[in-house]
Amino acid sequence: MASVKQMGKVIIAAAGPGDPELITYKAVQFLQQADVILTDRLVNKEIISRFASKKAEVIEVGKQSGKYGSTPQEYINALMIRYALQNKLVVRLKGGDVSLFSNILDELETLSQNRISYEIIPGVTAALGAAAYAGIPLTARGYSTGVRLLTFYKPEVVTDDEWNDLGRTTDTLVFYMSSQSLSQLAQRLYEAGMDRLKPVAVIEQATTPVQHVFIQTLDKCREESDRVFLSP
Amino acid sequence: MASVKQMGKVIIAAAGPGDPELITYKAVQFLQQADVILTDRLVNKEIISRFASKKAEVIEVGKQSGKYGSTPQEYINALMIRYALQNKLVVRLKGGDVSLFSNILDELETLSQNRISYEIIPGVTAALGAAAYAGIPLTARGYSTGVRLLTFYKPEVVTDDEWNDLGRTTDTLVFYMSSQSLSQLAQRLYEAGMDRLKPVAVIEQATTPVQHVFIQTLDKCREESDRVFLSP
Repeated sequence: MASVKQMGKVIIAAAGPGDPELITYKAVQFLQQADVILTDRLVNKEIISRFASKKAEVIEVGKQSGKYGSTPQEYINALMIRYALQNKLVVRLKGGDVSLFSNILDELETLSQNRISYEIIPGVTAALGAAAYAGIPLTARGYSTGVRLLTFYKPEVVTDDEWNDLGRTTDTLVFYMSSQSLSQLAQRLYEAGMDRLKPVAVIEQATTPVQHVFIQTLDKCREESDRVFLSP
Repeated sequence: MASVKQMGKVIIAAAGPGDPELITYKAVQFLQQADVILTDRLVNKEIISRFASKKAEVIEVGKQSGKYGSTPQEYINALMIRYALQNKLVVRLKGGDVSLFSNILDELETLSQNRISYEIIPGVTAALGAAAYAGIPLTARGYSTGVRLLTFYKPEVVTDDEWNDLGRTTDTLVFYMSSQSLSQLAQRLYEAGMDRLKPVAVIEQATTPVQHVFIQTLDKCREESDRVFLSP
């Protein structure tokens, strides 16, 4: 019998928002079969210890760690290609979902250029994890009929017209990775016309045992954070 | 020994966007322990057959079925309460995620008023499922830094200012449950200033074996659907 050469494959899989059990059943199946797992450092370690094959080679990569420094994207790409060409099943595990604020385009292009077959497995994004665990639906009749998933990385690229729209919209606004600029964001939304009594939920470490939920008015967010900013 | 009375509990769990394996590991655990499952009719039947306890009583409820008619929300609420008061573990299974376009507020209030303990399990929402399976990230450097999750149910409640903002924004726009009004929506966005060559992905039956992805310009959406509207 001729031996059929098995091709390697890369699975780009979402790990979910924090609680390891919020990973999808599908991603768990692939973790159990994986030869190599390239995991973002921020992914909950329990996901690997509970769900990954014991034979899998686990390599921590990712850009979001001050302690270990950043793994260049080119290096992550090279690892994916190298192992896939060795006919291995590679799982590239990323925190949250993979289609939001995750910059997978570069990895997808690299895989396509190298004719490596891949699959993308979506996940529970932090906004939905936080909403569920805090018991705050993001849409509800009479309150909000739409949701915006945003970041506050680059306030300077938002035009005045766009700020005014943010200040007036009835959509629920969710700002990812923005708690360190909370006062600045609240101030900008206030100036854009948002009601000073608008309730704001600030949620940290969503869906983990140390999740914190603070619910306060927009005004309070401006004040609170000013105090934080003024303290030593 | 005194017998400790076990309290019932309700788990409001997301079933995910279509592929049964996109349900979370956590929801699977609860389905395996459930005494009663109240499932929306649109939830993939395979989720029950593969993951639910064989002893569980499965009751189909939900509002999204022309064939069977609608289950009044009051009846769903009454079922949840009845079984929870019988000290049963009730899983209320809903399609997609539970915090988006899902109107769980009424169910949460009912559970609170009756002092029934509950837990909410988030899931993969259709936008993220569709993005992953179609290979189209919703944010990407140089393209889009935000996403809006919207419906096109009530175009008349959107003001002209809001339309103009939708026409001009660089956020990725995702319209749920809107394919039947595609031409009308495309026309409205065009009038609001959206580039006529803006690429639009129309995705049906996302993450299922019969997923369809059509990628075409905004202009084409206006034309295509006009033809559909004119045909008998």
